[in-house]
Amino acid sequence: MTDAAMKLVVTGASGRMGKTLIRIINETEGAALRAAIEREGSDALGKDAGELAGTGHLGVPLTDDPLKAFLDADGVIDFTTPSASVEFAGLAAQARIVHVIGTTGFSEDDETQIKAAARHARIIKSGNMSLGVNLLGVLVEQAAAALSAKGWDIEVLEMHHRHKVDAPSGTALLLGDAAAKGRGVDLNDKAVKVRDGHAGPREEGTIGFATLRGGSVVGEHSVYLAGEGETVTLSHKATDRSIFARGGIQAALWGQDKKPGLYSMLDVLGLSH
Amino acid sequence: MTDAAMKLVVTGASGRMGKTLIRIINETEGAALRAAIEREGSDALGKDAGELAGTGHLGVPLTDDPLKAFLDADGVIDFTTPSASVEFAGLAAQARIVHVIGTTGFSEDDETQIKAAARHARIIKSGNMSLGVNLLGVLVEQAAAALSAKGWDIEVLEMHHRHKVDAPSGTALLLGDAAAKGRGVDLNDKAVKVRDGHAGPREEGTIGFATLRGGSVVGEHSVYLAGEGETVTLSHKATDRSIFARGGIQAALWGQDKKPGLYSMLDVLGLSH
Amino acid sequence: MTDAAMKLVVTGASGRMGKTLIRIINETEGAALRAAIEREGSDALGKDAGELAGTGHLGVPLTDDPLKAFLDADGVIDFTTPSASVEFAGLAAQARIVHVIGTTGFSEDDETQIKAAARHARIIKSGNMSLGVNLLGVLVEQAAAALSAKGWDIEVLEMHHRHKVDAPSGTALLLGDAAAKGRGVDLNDKAVKVRDGHAGPREEGTIGFATLRGGSVVGEHSVYLAGEGETVTLSHKATDRSIFARGGIQAALWGQDKKPGLYSMLDVLGLSH
Amino acid sequence: MTDAAMKLVVTGASGRMGKTLIRIINETEGAALRAAIEREGSDALGKDAGELAGTGHLGVPLTDDPLKAFLDADGVIDFTTPSASVEFAGLAAQARIVHVIGTTGFSEDDETQIKAAARHARIIKSGNMSLGVNLLGVLVEQAAAALSAKGWDIEVLEMHHRHKVDAPSGTALLLGDAAAKGRGVDLNDKAVKVRDGHAGPREEGTIGFATLRGGSVVGEHSVYLAGEGETVTLSHKATDRSIFARGGIQAALWGQDKKPGLYSMLDVLGLSH
Repeated sequence: MTDAAMKLVVTGASGRMGKTLIRIINETEGAALRAAIEREGSDALGKDAGELAGTGHLGVPLTDDPLKAFLDADGVIDFTTPSASVEFAGLAAQARIVHVIGTTGFSEDDETQIKAAARHARIIKSGNMSLGVNLLGVLVEQAAAALSAKGWDIEVLEMHHRHKVDAPSGTALLLGDAAAKGRGVDLNDKAVKVRDGHAGPREEGTIGFATLRGGSVVGEHSVYLAGEGETVTLSHKATDRSIFARGGIQAALWGQDKKPGLYSMLDVLGLSH
Repeated sequence: MTDAAMKLVVTGASGRMGKTLIRIINETEGAALRAAIEREGSDALGKDAGELAGTGHLGVPLTDDPLKAFLDADGVIDFTTPSASVEFAGLAAQARIVHVIGTTGFSEDDETQIKAAARHARIIKSGNMSLGVNLLGVLVEQAAAALSAKGWDIEVLEMHHRHKVDAPSGTALLLGDAAAKGRGVDLNDKAVKVRDGHAGPREEGTIGFATLRGGSVVGEHSVYLAGEGETVTLSHKATDRSIFARGGIQAALWGQDKKPGLYSMLDVLGLSH
Repeated sequence: MTDAAMKLVVTGASGRMGKTLIRIINETEGAALRAAIEREGSDALGKDAGELAGTGHLGVPLTDDPLKAFLDADGVIDFTTPSASVEFAGLAAQARIVHVIGTTGFSEDDETQIKAAARHARIIKSGNMSLGVNLLGVLVEQAAAALSAKGWDIEVLEMHHRHKVDAPSGTALLLGDAAAKGRGVDLNDKAVKVRDGHAGPREEGTIGFATLRGGSVVGEHSVYLAGEGETVTLSHKATDRSIFARGGIQAALWGQDKKPGLYSMLDVLGLSH
Repeated sequence: MTDAAMKLVVTGASGRMGKTLIRIINETEGAALRAAIEREGSDALGKDAGELAGTGHLGVPLTDDPLKAFLDADGVIDFTTPSASVEFAGLAAQARIVHVIGTTGFSEDDETQIKAAARHARIIKSGNMSLGVNLLGVLVEQAAAALSAKGWDIEVLEMHHRHKVDAPSGTALLLGDAAAKGRGVDLNDKAVKVRDGHAGPREEGTIGFATLRGGSVVGEHSVYLAGEGETVTLSHKATDRSIFARGGIQAALWGQDKKPGLYSMLDVLGLSH
């Protein structure tokens, strides 16, 4: 932590993601924990953020007053609930700071309010804060556009731990969507999610999905573009759930010198056009 | 080709596999093409085996007299039909030579006749002549036995070209079978071939299959044993259909100094117990 | 082959690449072999291109008169020598057709002459005609630019067959170069090609190379971007040397409706900016 | 934890491995933490093992009296120092319990004392307690024996995080050793650890090593056996350093019903011969 370090607030500070954020801010050069917020009535209020997060004492007690915290900070990192995040966006606008939103599940009305807040706050918002996954999506879209469906077959493979209950994973579908967008088609028309028995030859232009489940695998995704005599494979492997917290902190640091507005992780990666 | 080279006969010499065998025997140290057999009435009779196979003239015209050929040879490599192979086994027994059988689809009665022939011939017979696939099957069985179902989940992934019509591949099922055998269970009770939508958490002891299709991929198979914090993966990748011919020739060379009997590729690999 | 098929000339028609081109043009919808060129004095002159290439008779005898052939064609695909390719470029300009140049090793003076020819010919020129490798280079550059050297380490792995004599492969260096370009650094300053014994911790911003050699592997390349808790991997696998011929033919088809000019495979992929 | 649970002692209980052991014993069915040992004078003596390890209160205060603890337990898991482990082996012999030794760096004299203790204790000792790595070593040795050096090239690839200072990793060398043993050769004569520039074609029978470094990768190892047209790959991927603790606990459970003696992880895997 230096004088120039970005002063950050963590919301939902006593939750699993909040504690991870506290721990990683503490390790990140250029970032400093300024405040830690929990909702009114939480048992964790008053406790030290560092002790909660297992980093040792940090001298930052949890409070339930976000506005006061925001006014004294450069940014807030927020993985909470839609209603809380909409409120935090309004406060971030008042404080004219950076608001990184990793929360998901917003209604249309929520989105409108967040857009309004982005006239004064610098808001970076994404359903998946991993830099790697966001990058992969962009690369997959480009690859799918460059290599025509006539000669190149697209397949999406994912592997997750044994406890995951749905298939394919949300990220696999997101990557399939990126491929479909690159091809100018609708994934719903092209996705093949089951192959069993006499399935017949592969149909041109389809996008196949395959799912592996086992052990404690955090998340692995590969997109294959298989042509005659050559295959391009674009993969992402997560080994630690902290990547979402890390991505959020990178987003906050990126937002420091930007104008007010609503940004995505593609902006952080310099890949929006 | 040296004086000590094993003198080999190829059956079905004008078919795709026959031509591949001729070409690879010609490249293999310690092996020499002695004769090339086609069935009576074939247009290819009398033509030079090398010219048919694209290796240049070899001075070996195709004939339809297997017994004469066998009596003058050390071994025969045979990927033809069940009825032809049963007949060749009898002739190989008369000639007391090595008979490598890559043919599939034998009836129980065929098997009995082959077993009888093996009293005098050295017969090496397998439904898949690839050394790598046979090795992988053995290793998968051992791994599945060593790592208990309680902590280790088994998954089988395969990828093949876009023209393949069935899923999972025969080799994937063979590997799943090896895993089930290692675990002392029946694959039919444990196989999970479809995961789509809300499939629920992975059930302990199951063996999952996943299928990719695309491009011109000859055949890739991976068996995952995924535990808490670690994964063992055993894979085979074929890039050339000639591996079955190569395996057959290796089997013939291996059989040269063996006693009459019925052998498998596991014997060739030194892995039978 | 239809009436609308692009009429193509193959140069160096009796060489290994020439024969592959003839074979694949013959399989490619929208392309037709119009003429096949060899140099004066070649034994192959007068022979049928299809018989040479193993596709069966095509009715296209090899000739040594490129200009006549070009005047009657829509494009020429040319993997020969620098001096021959420079001459062909001039003739392609006269005939105002597409000239795909896969030849390598041009002098600066050669390049100038090719540029001049591109005022009238549509020339597509690349040192590596594989669509997949060219795509991978573009994606690697972008990924390296998006993921900063501070948190993301770049490594390039390649595997080739046992006969390859140099390491790392030219393609591995090309990919390393793309990564360096994305990072705004010079590969010569950043490449780490040897790690053995006590090498010390990885230095930030370096680009590592690792080499595997074995079997008959045609060519596999992977670029890793490894961060804290996540890794992005971008890979290309070639299983068939015909991919260079295929890429050349795709380039010719792409060039059909373009204006005269000098293009690269990135233009063919729609990825130049 | 049930009545029948194996009562376990952890030594070095306040160290990183000790705390991991405490945490995982607490999660493992059939195992129960009975005592936690630290050396005399440690600040941690008297503290609760569970609170130290972050599992919540377990009612097991750290003590410095191993013999008393061993007499009341079924087994001890011990990743400490050679001198401590030799002493613990003697005490385990007195108590006639299971002693799992993950400690490394023993002198010949230490080994002799451990062997003596194994007349009364059931000692399971290994330099690498991962079940997966031990299994992989066995499979690699078999594969290398089955696939002859004439046609099959062996390569070992490893990847580790950016902080690792030596290359290749100890586990990569262990796997190379297993391959050499399978081939009946000495790794020192056959290892190729550097390829850079004009290295020439691959020499038959050599064992190549390649090293990747980046990010936070815990440890990935792959052994390739690359032949003509096919490649077998045997891999292990660790994503969590806890696998060594888990392997130690599995070893202890395995040892419960065994006779006194000195065992290795291969015995635990049922793979010793």
